[in-house]
Amino acid sequence: MSKGLPKQSEDFPGWYQEVVKQAGMAEHGSARGSQVIKPYGYALWENMQRALDDRFKATGHENLMFPLLIPYSVLAREEEHLEGFSAEVWTVTQGGGKELEEPLAIRPTSEATIWSAYSNWIQSYRDLPLLYNQWCNVMRYELRTRLFLRTSEFLWQEGHTAHATRDEAWEEALQMLEIYREVAEDILCVPVLAGRKSEAQRFPGADETFPIEGMMRDKRALQCGTSHFLGQNFSKAYDVKFLTDQGEQEYAWGTSWGWSTRMVGGTVMAHGDDKGLRLPPAVAPTQAVIVPIYKTDDERTRVLEVATKIKDGLVGNGVRVKVDDRDQHRPGFKFAEWELKGVPVRMELGPRDVEADHVVMVDRVTGEKRTVATDSAIADMASVLNAVQKALRDDATAFRDANTHEAATFDEVREGVAAEGGFWITPWCGDAQCEEKVSAETSASIRVLPLEREDPGGPCLVCGNPGTERATWAKAY
Amino acid sequence: MSKGLPKQSEDFPGWYQEVVKQAGMAEHGSARGSQVIKPYGYALWENMQRALDDRFKATGHENLMFPLLIPYSVLAREEEHLEGFSAEVWTVTQGGGKELEEPLAIRPTSEATIWSAYSNWIQSYRDLPLLYNQWCNVMRYELRTRLFLRTSEFLWQEGHTAHATRDEAWEEALQMLEIYREVAEDILCVPVLAGRKSEAQRFPGADETFPIEGMMRDKRALQCGTSHFLGQNFSKAYDVKFLTDQGEQEYAWGTSWGWSTRMVGGTVMAHGDDKGLRLPPAVAPTQAVIVPIYKTDDERTRVLEVATKIKDGLVGNGVRVKVDDRDQHRPGFKFAEWELKGVPVRMELGPRDVEADHVVMVDRVTGEKRTVATDSAIADMASVLNAVQKALRDDATAFRDANTHEAATFDEVREGVAAEGGFWITPWCGDAQCEEKVSAETSASIRVLPLEREDPGGPCLVCGNPGTERATWAKAY
Repeated sequence: MSKGLPKQSEDFPGWYQEVVKQAGMAEHGSARGSQVIKPYGYALWENMQRALDDRFKATGHENLMFPLLIPYSVLAREEEHLEGFSAEVWTVTQGGGKELEEPLAIRPTSEATIWSAYSNWIQSYRDLPLLYNQWCNVMRYELRTRLFLRTSEFLWQEGHTAHATRDEAWEEALQMLEIYREVAEDILCVPVLAGRKSEAQRFPGADETFPIEGMMRDKRALQCGTSHFLGQNFSKAYDVKFLTDQGEQEYAWGTSWGWSTRMVGGTVMAHGDDKGLRLPPAVAPTQAVIVPIYKTDDERTRVLEVATKIKDGLVGNGVRVKVDDRDQHRPGFKFAEWELKGVPVRMELGPRDVEADHVVMVDRVTGEKRTVATDSAIADMASVLNAVQKALRDDATAFRDANTHEAATFDEVREGVAAEGGFWITPWCGDAQCEEKVSAETSASIRVLPLEREDPGGPCLVCGNPGTERATWAKAY
Repeated sequence: MSKGLPKQSEDFPGWYQEVVKQAGMAEHGSARGSQVIKPYGYALWENMQRALDDRFKATGHENLMFPLLIPYSVLAREEEHLEGFSAEVWTVTQGGGKELEEPLAIRPTSEATIWSAYSNWIQSYRDLPLLYNQWCNVMRYELRTRLFLRTSEFLWQEGHTAHATRDEAWEEALQMLEIYREVAEDILCVPVLAGRKSEAQRFPGADETFPIEGMMRDKRALQCGTSHFLGQNFSKAYDVKFLTDQGEQEYAWGTSWGWSTRMVGGTVMAHGDDKGLRLPPAVAPTQAVIVPIYKTDDERTRVLEVATKIKDGLVGNGVRVKVDDRDQHRPGFKFAEWELKGVPVRMELGPRDVEADHVVMVDRVTGEKRTVATDSAIADMASVLNAVQKALRDDATAFRDANTHEAATFDEVREGVAAEGGFWITPWCGDAQCEEKVSAETSASIRVLPLEREDPGGPCLVCGNPGTERATWAKAY
């Protein structure tokens, strides 16, 4: 715990690794590339899940569960899709001590099995839309792993919908993008750019990929969630036809969309500082902590009595609160530990505070320290947490905006990305070769294009042909 | 939908298979032994999950997530455990297109990885207890599968706790058994016997296994959940030692406990009748359905307006309710469909009902039909659902009790199990050979022994030596 963290400005990857470890969020598992998500990281994930799942259900989606293992013959039917994932697949070849007749792939994603089932589930326009989602584990082979951000196994939700018309599927893909934006910004306090991916960056099998992209504290981009408009690619590959209300056979239109435990790492990297995590109150496993301060047994009794009263009052108001009554640690140690764990509000309570009927309240985002009447500490906690939530979002937005630049030339981007990092917005002609040239020379990729194509107001930064897209470039995770 | 079901009394397995399929709960997946849990089955699981998870958290447990894949070297360290599971393991031998250096087992259960991690997490008595749980998928190789009841992959929760003393671990195992009993009886309306397993039926690696056993409508037993007292078996195998408050090194004491999607099947089999499912209101995905009845467009408008008003009122009261406004089906078809799906309360609403400001309410458990004022239908729904919940539990309890018999001799049990099925309670000497003899000749096994050993009041049904246990025998799933 008390080992201290590397400074973000000196060693961001080292800071990340240490804070995730010391806060008890995750550690590496015994099999290569695997991770154990520990209770503090998992609780953050559960709160994120709840925010997403509530919105999925409110928009008419239902959860279900498809199998973990996919026969290769099923996986292979959408060619581009298989090609995109074949190098990442884990393969089961034995069951019950015997060789299997056909090897089975651990799902890298579930379009294949799900569209294979949809071919039986969809006959008529009356069967549509299918608005389904699953919360599950997936595996993709990784040689170099980083907790939450890149591991062989991760947890996610994958939504898979089928529709009678192109327009309806398109609207669905955008609706889910908007839900992702809302959860990222309103719940996790991570401002994001929501838009389109370039063709080169699309999901294998999608006609259009819509990402939300956030900026981390090292000024790199993180793709926080993606929604795909699949067109009729999977319905054609898996023969998902339906009878329209006009009595004709047509292929169904699809979407898929995913959000993963990667965003636990994203929340860490978007908000943390040199003291540790700074967690958004809306998802923080512990929103407020009360640290009792005492010397004698008598003081301990009196202070803990009031601490418990405050805790009970807060629990009654739906606040996730803890009293840190561990005897083996001093208050200073506890302060540092809860700062490291990013708990939004800390309350310090000593014998004098008890006498004066107040607590000392410290805000993890601004560091502001103030004295608050005990009753107000209970009654006003919801608005205090809202204020911390807003301060964290404002801080992240100011940071992102301060590190977003407009550029007209390739030189500016090359030098800017190397010297400062951050997001670089330029005109681009839409040609994949120009895109590839920038990526090769700067390690920055196009993170996002506007949802509606915008006139970039200048020529392509590479070839000088007329710009047709306003592209945002950045180095990314 | 309208194909009708086999009669339970004529073909219970056929009835089960058809009702699960026709209600849209599950179907077989493309890989052998796999299943797709469809939205109606999954929603039941989610509601069950919520009931369990709330109770786990209220008793201080936290969720986390261990990896899906376990290196064989880790799995092999508790010998009895490995031996118990080796024939059921699925094995991953390739990743990213290459042979792995060490094959990896898909977790059949997670004691091995978890205790392996606990050896790093536990140093001192201050680190204890660890009260952890995970919701995940596991796989066990199965040749003959039955949806929910026996599939290669299933979903479950597995709790894994570590304690400083034997007593504390023992209490924990019993506490979780009590939570399982409560959820089975209070939430799922399935009366259960909670007790001990015989040594022959224990979990591999456990010192004591505590099951809850319910009776299905075919009079067979289903193990609904199990809690295991692991003693120090896993702490010794994985070297999980801690410094006691007396300054000595001791091995930690463990428990594990699991509840799976099997109980979705259990809920179907414990309550269903020849018309289909009868779902407990506490977990029914849809608690009430409103079926509008109309001929003309004008009637349709008027009826749907009131139906929507009722629905909105119920939703506002937290009731899970649907209006079945499908035009392509007649009311009679809809009645049968919602009966098949086991929706606890059906409301029928036609133009005359609208005029009279009432609805016709039909209870799925008793079949009782009555006319209720529209306002009461909204205001009193919670108590109606409670009454259905109670009626379902009473019905299942009466059925279980009517099919539970006391017997003194082996002949009685042999004939009783063959002719009538059900639970047979006998004196038993505690010897595994006598147990094995009964099982071999009757296909009935000991489902449960009382938590506290009870004087059975007679000699062992097999050997005639003094009875030391009051054993409950039954054929089981």
